[in-house]
Amino acid sequence: MHAITIPEPGGPEALVWDEVPDPVAGEGEVLVEVVASAVNRADVLQRQGFYNPPPGASPYPGLECSGRIAAIGPGVSGWTVGDEVCALLAGGGYAQKVVVPAGQLLPVPEGVDLVQAAALPEVACTVWSNVFMISHLRPGETLLVHGGSSGIGTMAIQLAKAVGAKVAVTAGTKEKLERCAELGADILINYREQDFVAEVEEATGGAGADVILDNMGAKYLDRNVRALAINGRLAIIGLQGGAKGELNIGALLHKRAAVTATSLRARPVEEKTAIVAAVREHVWPLLAAGRVCPVVDRELPMAQAAEAHRVVEESGHIGKVLLVAP
Amino acid sequence: MHAITIPEPGGPEALVWDEVPDPVAGEGEVLVEVVASAVNRADVLQRQGFYNPPPGASPYPGLECSGRIAAIGPGVSGWTVGDEVCALLAGGGYAQKVVVPAGQLLPVPEGVDLVQAAALPEVACTVWSNVFMISHLRPGETLLVHGGSSGIGTMAIQLAKAVGAKVAVTAGTKEKLERCAELGADILINYREQDFVAEVEEATGGAGADVILDNMGAKYLDRNVRALAINGRLAIIGLQGGAKGELNIGALLHKRAAVTATSLRARPVEEKTAIVAAVREHVWPLLAAGRVCPVVDRELPMAQAAEAHRVVEESGHIGKVLLVAP
Repeated sequence: MHAITIPEPGGPEALVWDEVPDPVAGEGEVLVEVVASAVNRADVLQRQGFYNPPPGASPYPGLECSGRIAAIGPGVSGWTVGDEVCALLAGGGYAQKVVVPAGQLLPVPEGVDLVQAAALPEVACTVWSNVFMISHLRPGETLLVHGGSSGIGTMAIQLAKAVGAKVAVTAGTKEKLERCAELGADILINYREQDFVAEVEEATGGAGADVILDNMGAKYLDRNVRALAINGRLAIIGLQGGAKGELNIGALLHKRAAVTATSLRARPVEEKTAIVAAVREHVWPLLAAGRVCPVVDRELPMAQAAEAHRVVEESGHIGKVLLVAP
Repeated sequence: MHAITIPEPGGPEALVWDEVPDPVAGEGEVLVEVVASAVNRADVLQRQGFYNPPPGASPYPGLECSGRIAAIGPGVSGWTVGDEVCALLAGGGYAQKVVVPAGQLLPVPEGVDLVQAAALPEVACTVWSNVFMISHLRPGETLLVHGGSSGIGTMAIQLAKAVGAKVAVTAGTKEKLERCAELGADILINYREQDFVAEVEEATGGAGADVILDNMGAKYLDRNVRALAINGRLAIIGLQGGAKGELNIGALLHKRAAVTATSLRARPVEEKTAIVAAVREHVWPLLAAGRVCPVVDRELPMAQAAEAHRVVEESGHIGKVLLVAP
């Protein structure tokens, strides 16, 4: 088969479409013939040499895919060769074939195109696990999503609205904020022109955000704590603004608030399986009902992964950038 | 009645035993004739002028008491005049009488002396809400308790052991560590001589602590994050080492860990009521069975509250310092 390889870490040109050996499904695994994968920021870090795949994972990038089951390993039940699926991967999605633990497979939701289904696993699992399983966003509460027009952001807006929460978003352009509004966001904050702490405070009558989904880390830490409501929960899923920041523990204590930080990729298979099962139970019906949709910026041929990475690094996109396998 | 008043904030001598008007039980409240109260660090801060009582709370110090119900306000059921009780207070425990919302009352546990029951409400509610309701300590996990010989620490050791957890403690003297060992602590760390991060790592085979109960805040923040296990939870309940510290969000994310900070006093009555109900359900049977005991350092007459504060400020005590009302 062919896959995107990284002979030497570097810029987008480090991604090389090359012939590699086919993977083989082991115990508890399934072989998927990939139809599409999607770009995540972790892939960019991996390409740059800053994010090595966890032990046992494929050396090729790609944390999610859609496709058809091509073979089933020993000890797997509930799936049939030919099934249309999408999957959460520890790596290897930028390829024509990939093996995946059966617990990380999902059926393609009713009414969703097989290519577009590649946009779903990472964002659905990240948002559901952080905003709902860890931070317990409840109806009537306010969620602040940084990077509202990202793949994560567009899914977070839709899921939070679907459960009856109020949603505030930050983004860097008017166009991105308008797309967030179309998806249901109630409070639109241009972070280049506005102070999100003041805007959230005003829009919530001084209460603040009950849950914040943050990809900036250190750069936003102090402001995020200030923007939290009493009993607020700050869920950090990215470090785009640095990894070490001053925490105002006094403010946190005054608010009886929580700061959590997680990544999905490094979790053991059993934790991913539990998250995927929860997503199938809670998110999949919303997709089938058309209340939540994948948001896709563009589809590129997988061999042009370098171009896809440039798009993501320039942050010009809205939603997910997909890579379609030949 | 008489109460300890604070005419001017200051040292222990700022505490003045004086005649004051009797409180009256309002809607949903009960009047308790106080038999004993106990000293908490928050009382010291209040005496120094750094911790004003929340709106509506008694101006006198004292966050817990034991005693007998002397009168019952409108809308209260389930309690009778003369009942022996202990109570979580928003203030006013250093007095001969105090009013308390009915949801913050607890019966004196079977087998516990009425005076000694004053040692229970704050530590039981603080430990149960933080270690179990927020941080979900599970059987087989490891709890690290800073200040293991404090009132909070002695209760945390006993409750964690009762649910089948492993307990590590820090303390500053051999005598204090020995008392922690008698209460069940498995891993004893003298913070004056040992590095708690290295000691916890070694004692857990490199895994770290699943839950940390911390009263130091900023001073221990970085070390606490280093001492956490994967999926670890750091529960901060005090700022004795400062309120602002650098948080290594990268390490937190790598560990998929959580930092929470809470105080009990400022919580609304409905949250305190829920905590008290959970304590009655989960902790009271352990006290009645003798598996958990109040740990009392000494009992002093309430009029000698200044002396009691000196003892607590010098950290020479083990467990709680009680104030017995005349």
